[in-house]
Amino acid sequence: MPFESYKATIRDVEFGENVKITEPCNLYECKIGSGSFIGPFVEIQKGAVIGENCRVQSHSFICELVTIGNDCFIGHGVMFINDLFSEGGPAQGNKELWKKTNVGQHVSIGSNATILPVDICDQVVIGAGSVVTKDITKPGIYAGNPAKFLRSI
Amino acid sequence: MPFESYKATIRDVEFGENVKITEPCNLYECKIGSGSFIGPFVEIQKGAVIGENCRVQSHSFICELVTIGNDCFIGHGVMFINDLFSEGGPAQGNKELWKKTNVGQHVSIGSNATILPVDICDQVVIGAGSVVTKDITKPGIYAGNPAKFLRSI
Amino acid sequence: MPFESYKATIRDVEFGENVKITEPCNLYECKIGSGSFIGPFVEIQKGAVIGENCRVQSHSFICELVTIGNDCFIGHGVMFINDLFSEGGPAQGNKELWKKTNVGQHVSIGSNATILPVDICDQVVIGAGSVVTKDITKPGIYAGNPAKFLRSI
Repeated sequence: MPFESYKATIRDVEFGENVKITEPCNLYECKIGSGSFIGPFVEIQKGAVIGENCRVQSHSFICELVTIGNDCFIGHGVMFINDLFSEGGPAQGNKELWKKTNVGQHVSIGSNATILPVDICDQVVIGAGSVVTKDITKPGIYAGNPAKFLRSI
Repeated sequence: MPFESYKATIRDVEFGENVKITEPCNLYECKIGSGSFIGPFVEIQKGAVIGENCRVQSHSFICELVTIGNDCFIGHGVMFINDLFSEGGPAQGNKELWKKTNVGQHVSIGSNATILPVDICDQVVIGAGSVVTKDITKPGIYAGNPAKFLRSI
Repeated sequence: MPFESYKATIRDVEFGENVKITEPCNLYECKIGSGSFIGPFVEIQKGAVIGENCRVQSHSFICELVTIGNDCFIGHGVMFINDLFSEGGPAQGNKELWKKTNVGQHVSIGSNATILPVDICDQVVIGAGSVVTKDITKPGIYAGNPAKFLRSI
């Protein structure tokens, strides 16, 4: 065989109660809280933490160093990022260059949004297709590329 | 088993003639017209209607309350939306808050576009990576975030 | 059976040495260089060329007429395009209307980026969520929709 093949799988995940998952998905060495739902074609990497009563919709990717609070909604095709290519390219093995993302409680992220490594406080809505490049410290609705404050909820 | 697992599947779909599908995909309780093609890693939710001779390319997501006419091209990674988080978060069970999308005939939507709940008339091209936030009532080419009229076809 | 079903697969791919792949993915009649990695839920079409020591992350789509050099990083959910709908819709069978993309060496493309048919020189970083609409002929960091030069590496 000219290549080495792995199968997307559910491996070494710490589950709460009543978690529902649609396969195929690729979830490994992460934590998924009680009552949460994971859609199809989702990848969640090791060390990522999903809170309770969250929905992670189809096609989303949640990387290492991302922590998501309770009652969050992650839309379809949402991509989280931990490597800013700060040295001009991927950090590769050097995880000291990776950065964390913390998402609070009751945060809803629209489909096709891109989330750079930031902190997002509680009670935030991110519009679909937005690119979040900076910390969000005030509850409200944000959208655009880069995402900006639109209005209070 | 600490979680409940579903498999992406093709279930209770109303098919026309000569439909081609690449699996894995997750298609349920929707309608797909004659001569249409569905690429891999696609999700189409219940109640969605795809017309005849359409192509829905890989990684796209078509949600409930979306109707697409004949001869449409939905690129790769296109995400449709029915919930505007109008109350500050997901409507959850309250479908009265969901909104419809109607796409006309001969509409081509570029890859990675995001389509909020709008009406799009016939003979429209949406550029790749665009975010469509408003109704489109005039044929032509639209692009950007938010998508704006660029020129006639 | 009311529809014809294909399975995403690995078919007629020309592999270098030590290629690693996570399935499910849909790779056919393309070329993948030695030491490269392909994540899950990836589609690579016929004729596409991926160089050596590249990473193509989950959910990305690489179409016909795309050539990627060595030591490149293609993030998650990156979509390449070869059809600009230049006649007001998909070129369908008429491949004379399709256009090529050439990506140089040591190019890193952030997640959810959209790449129209362009040439990208060596030593380039594309920010996450960007839409690249024009050739990039000078090394550096580019971002936005449309992507613009931000700074040197």
